[in-house]
Amino acid sequence: MPDSMMMFRLSGLPDFQEGDDLAQSIIDTLALNKQQLVEGDILVIAHKVVSKSEGACAYLDQVTPSPEAIELAKTVNKDPRKVEVILSQSKRVVRAFKRPDQEEGTLIAEHKNGYICANAAVDESNADHPGQLILLPEDPDKSAQQLCLALEAHFACNLGIVISDTFGRPWRLGQTNVAIGLANVPGVMSMLGEEDAFGRPLSVTAPAFADELAAASGLLMEKSAKAPVIVFRGLSWPKTDSSSRDLIRSHNEDLFR
Amino acid sequence: MPDSMMMFRLSGLPDFQEGDDLAQSIIDTLALNKQQLVEGDILVIAHKVVSKSEGACAYLDQVTPSPEAIELAKTVNKDPRKVEVILSQSKRVVRAFKRPDQEEGTLIAEHKNGYICANAAVDESNADHPGQLILLPEDPDKSAQQLCLALEAHFACNLGIVISDTFGRPWRLGQTNVAIGLANVPGVMSMLGEEDAFGRPLSVTAPAFADELAAASGLLMEKSAKAPVIVFRGLSWPKTDSSSRDLIRSHNEDLFR
Repeated sequence: MPDSMMMFRLSGLPDFQEGDDLAQSIIDTLALNKQQLVEGDILVIAHKVVSKSEGACAYLDQVTPSPEAIELAKTVNKDPRKVEVILSQSKRVVRAFKRPDQEEGTLIAEHKNGYICANAAVDESNADHPGQLILLPEDPDKSAQQLCLALEAHFACNLGIVISDTFGRPWRLGQTNVAIGLANVPGVMSMLGEEDAFGRPLSVTAPAFADELAAASGLLMEKSAKAPVIVFRGLSWPKTDSSSRDLIRSHNEDLFR
Repeated sequence: MPDSMMMFRLSGLPDFQEGDDLAQSIIDTLALNKQQLVEGDILVIAHKVVSKSEGACAYLDQVTPSPEAIELAKTVNKDPRKVEVILSQSKRVVRAFKRPDQEEGTLIAEHKNGYICANAAVDESNADHPGQLILLPEDPDKSAQQLCLALEAHFACNLGIVISDTFGRPWRLGQTNVAIGLANVPGVMSMLGEEDAFGRPLSVTAPAFADELAAASGLLMEKSAKAPVIVFRGLSWPKTDSSSRDLIRSHNEDLFR
């Protein structure tokens, strides 16, 4: 493990539209900034630019809400078409809630990929225009892997990618970025078999490496600025065949429920 | 917001015993490494060194378990004296659980300071000898503030401190470090009133700044090595009168329950 590392954000990326080549934009922007990627760099990328370039968006004027969406919309004072989009992204609604001081409530939902988060990660912020909703990429691991291959080919080195979204947490206030798509980067570093500084087994210690990276990216990834790509340099990490599913607790293992 | 930042870990800190001066040790170790702290540096410090230097420990051979502890110990196959210590640190037990493949189960508990975590943060790893249990510091915010004042006085600059512990998460596998004690560093950065890159209000965005720092520290803070202090350099952040309580969701606001 190294003694230090650094992070920098990529400045000057364009807005993205469906069909744009995100990898090429990252390459071009690095070149403009006279920067390049080197062996072992990890990029944390806010999913919104991935979603936009893949066209993972919904448009309210194209949505017809189901009776279920119309009913649920009343509970949380949301546009029923928005609720319909949220339901289309969800396995189940965990909770529907609107506090008296809120104009619009929240649906805590289990996204079809297994993440439990507000509104099944359907988001209006940083949309290009009113009525556009940004969804998660269809297969965020695949998106990460394709991006990674393109960047590795260009820079001729091993890289890692974490696609992130911003989630609230049970029990704790504020949001942190979490990993929703991975290429090469381990989701969880298992420390089974390792020992603490005093020689006792670290049997249950398993740092959520990809979530540590995602959370750290929030220190430089300002939502109100256009800084969706953060580069981590100087870490040593094992290149693995990883998936964001490695970070999802199965229902029957969830001690916290 | 800066474009880049760096983190380094402090190498060569000693083991700590009750009564040791942690601030002085940090100062001495920095001097040995020809390093110093500068304006705006934030230190994330693993609580164990704070707890040990404050004597926030329990010793199994000094504990008499209550009937409640003895009963609960059977459910999770723990030493009843350890359960007694966990109960002494807890407001309530959220869940007692032992999977068939586990030798010893887990008590998810609400610590008396409000954190919900495994075994009320009572920990055997990195204890100095068998039978010693490390607790959280009695008042982690106060510990952080005292350390911060001592370091600020020595280095004549404004600093921030986050005392961290390693917590599991509902729904997600692996652990991340979270903030349990704060000096000067905001727990949550409220972005009320700010706008996204397209001019829409970021009404619910509130990055959990102190938890982002804590999680990031895990990238360099190896449990099996002795690296309990990580220095963050290059961030710009508002010095605030903060408390780790700023990060705790009140029961009635917890949408995820």
